[in-house]
Amino acid sequence: MKLEKEKFYRILAPRPAVLITTADKKGRSNAAPFSFVMPVSSNPPLVAFASAPQRHTLANIRETREFVINMSSENILNKLWICSEKFPKGVSEIEKASFTKTKSTMVSVPKIEESFGWLECILEFEKEAGDHVIVIGRIVDVEVKDIFWREEKLDVPKAKPLLHVTGKDFVVAERVVSVD
Amino acid sequence: MKLEKEKFYRILAPRPAVLITTADKKGRSNAAPFSFVMPVSSNPPLVAFASAPQRHTLANIRETREFVINMSSENILNKLWICSEKFPKGVSEIEKASFTKTKSTMVSVPKIEESFGWLECILEFEKEAGDHVIVIGRIVDVEVKDIFWREEKLDVPKAKPLLHVTGKDFVVAERVVSVD
Repeated sequence: MKLEKEKFYRILAPRPAVLITTADKKGRSNAAPFSFVMPVSSNPPLVAFASAPQRHTLANIRETREFVINMSSENILNKLWICSEKFPKGVSEIEKASFTKTKSTMVSVPKIEESFGWLECILEFEKEAGDHVIVIGRIVDVEVKDIFWREEKLDVPKAKPLLHVTGKDFVVAERVVSVD
Repeated sequence: MKLEKEKFYRILAPRPAVLITTADKKGRSNAAPFSFVMPVSSNPPLVAFASAPQRHTLANIRETREFVINMSSENILNKLWICSEKFPKGVSEIEKASFTKTKSTMVSVPKIEESFGWLECILEFEKEAGDHVIVIGRIVDVEVKDIFWREEKLDVPKAKPLLHVTGKDFVVAERVVSVD
């Protein structure tokens, strides 16, 4: 069946449900969920996400040029959802959701301790595209919790990554299959 | 633990494993798997994927400006993998993998019948980023197989979308959880 074109992202699914942490120039932190996200380049390491222009995440990145992509596991679903609520700019979703804020290694914006891995990024460039802005970040540090890293790859059944379908529906990535 | 920055995409995982079909100006078709892909904008509907500069997919899109994003289910895993092999330009991976090639609705490049859904696209613009090129497509048609669409969303347990982890490892998306 044909779908309305504007709903195309509902079949390009499920997609990694990440939390992006940022801070404004006063140091007030922010966390927001995004699933329009993809790797772009390996060397230099570049990542992209698409943001609606009015998001506080984008405003903060324009102020400080820094952000952290925090990877989400099943066990933080309800906290992640709290971060999607609209709070006034300057209010920290990290606190509202009772996440544990910890220091990042290479950037001054905080990361979320409950995540299974982190990509610390510096703004490389941005590019307007339709009703969103594509933000390209250069990765300056990558960390993953030891228990979720096995034989040079993510241990998916253990990490149980959260993926977004649409609205309040998510998928928990679990079952791994391999090519013969 | 810290990872080499170049491996960051192994924790930004798993990601939708799509097949992109294209054709050169002689009409010779091509299919190749990609997982650096994301929705960008809803209105206008725009999608992005990142391609290494030498890929035939990119060369074909530059020739004809058209491509189709074919969504993959678990049952096409081995065929999808065949499409990742290096064949000379002009050789159709669609035939090598014994996929069924069918006519698209709005573009002249074919789509793959075995997919659960299709995004037909016209090149909007491209942008170099590190060792890849970001290709932005405008979606001109969206279709999904009826049996996989339920209550205005993808029926994940039925569609069993394939997601890429790394190398020969994939995840089958199955278990849906909802926010309380």
